[in-house]
Amino acid sequence: MQKLIINFTPTGMIPTKKMTPHVPTTINEIVEDVHRAYELGITLAHIHARDEITGVPTYKKEVYAELISGIRKYAPDLVICTSLSGRDFNTLDKRADVLQLEGDLKPDMGSLTLSSLNFNKVASMNAPNMIEDLAKTMKSKGIVPELEVFDVGMINFGNYLVKKEYITPPLYYNLLFGNIACAQTNLLHVGVMLNDLPKDALISIAGVGTEQMMMNFLAITIGKGVRVGLEDNIWYDVEKTKLATNSELVERIHVVAKANNREIMTPSEFRAQMDMEPGYGRYGRVYN
Amino acid sequence: MQKLIINFTPTGMIPTKKMTPHVPTTINEIVEDVHRAYELGITLAHIHARDEITGVPTYKKEVYAELISGIRKYAPDLVICTSLSGRDFNTLDKRADVLQLEGDLKPDMGSLTLSSLNFNKVASMNAPNMIEDLAKTMKSKGIVPELEVFDVGMINFGNYLVKKEYITPPLYYNLLFGNIACAQTNLLHVGVMLNDLPKDALISIAGVGTEQMMMNFLAITIGKGVRVGLEDNIWYDVEKTKLATNSELVERIHVVAKANNREIMTPSEFRAQMDMEPGYGRYGRVYN
Repeated sequence: MQKLIINFTPTGMIPTKKMTPHVPTTINEIVEDVHRAYELGITLAHIHARDEITGVPTYKKEVYAELISGIRKYAPDLVICTSLSGRDFNTLDKRADVLQLEGDLKPDMGSLTLSSLNFNKVASMNAPNMIEDLAKTMKSKGIVPELEVFDVGMINFGNYLVKKEYITPPLYYNLLFGNIACAQTNLLHVGVMLNDLPKDALISIAGVGTEQMMMNFLAITIGKGVRVGLEDNIWYDVEKTKLATNSELVERIHVVAKANNREIMTPSEFRAQMDMEPGYGRYGRVYN
Repeated sequence: MQKLIINFTPTGMIPTKKMTPHVPTTINEIVEDVHRAYELGITLAHIHARDEITGVPTYKKEVYAELISGIRKYAPDLVICTSLSGRDFNTLDKRADVLQLEGDLKPDMGSLTLSSLNFNKVASMNAPNMIEDLAKTMKSKGIVPELEVFDVGMINFGNYLVKKEYITPPLYYNLLFGNIACAQTNLLHVGVMLNDLPKDALISIAGVGTEQMMMNFLAITIGKGVRVGLEDNIWYDVEKTKLATNSELVERIHVVAKANNREIMTPSEFRAQMDMEPGYGRYGRVYN
């Protein structure tokens, strides 16, 4: 069976210290949580930057630069994906700021959500031209998109981007289930999406809130990867009696992976499958 | 088998006279097309207003007032649904402008899209609080929402609105398939949606572009209603050799309905099933 991709999402945009003391928000805290997860065994880290003082999400490349250099000090080969989310700041300048980093500070991947959607309280705008511009910017720099899919139709838009050559296989998808106005955590929704995806794509599955565990274990069971961490879910148990730490969530994935006889995919194995250079991104393969 | 709902959509926001001379854009043209369809046999009309001079979409209640009075002159019992789309103007004031009409000018229904989404070229923002505010405004006036669903997750948000009592059964849904970043015109997508919808909801099915015919005939075959008209599709044939008229599209629905032994649901039969008064909207049943 395919080795297990663990996409580690320690922070996100929503959890605050008030919600859980375990969410890492400063540079040191995020670097430490990624380092600890790396030692346990993960494939890639999907990171969001926060303002060092206020803890509020920031798009600034200077903060991402410190995060990336901090992570690479301890985990030089880890695949690093930075968020290009427009939920809080929706201009191309801001969303693509982190893509300007070069050399050892350059991210391997950037997140690319494949349509506009609603979260619980707010809309998240990803207009077609914004998606295309972010994809083109990444392609010109050899940065690989992490394709984020929240509902069935987004897969069709991904296929369109491939056809127009805005994105280039091999492809990696995160499927996220359980947002209030998106695909839900049930087998029909998961099954339809898997049926629609390109057959050779690499895929991780996420669940929002306490359904993270169910979606992760489902993914392990059926041979797909997982996206796991406090970004999507702050609880260890479905009953919400115990706040989780990032390490506990990763450790539990390892327990179930072992029972399923699935080895963890290493960062370099992921790079090889994704046609990425041993350096960062698709270095030697910048498409223009 | 349940009688066939025909939801007639003559104009929309996209077709122009340049694209097809058959699209009605002035008040007279729209009233005439609705009148003709009414004589053929339809259940409700979903109307968009256009500026009388420029032909550009408008939210203005004064234009809707003329459309509604014009239609009711010839078709006094027809169910009239006005668009509350935010695609071109996205403030509550503008989107709810038409809901301020009173008495004989009051629309029976207003369209309510259940999330943000992307169309071909643009994003269409329907943030959660906007959807809730439009639903509350309609409910306070006894105007019934036409629930518009473009992808799987929107059904879950509809269920949430019911639970929070922002909308009240009986419910009517339009399912729209074939937009580039939304559910596609295939049986898995249609099947999952039908499986997720409340069992007693009334449902019409639409297809975008030349797939309108396939989605409409599928709907007739499986006992659901149709949404049909130049709003979604300007062609008579899949090969795009002949521009359609609204009447031709409705006539073709009648031919297939007859072959399926399905009678057309009359406006008053629809009103009865939707718990609407013989007047307009849910007159006597204003919920506060």
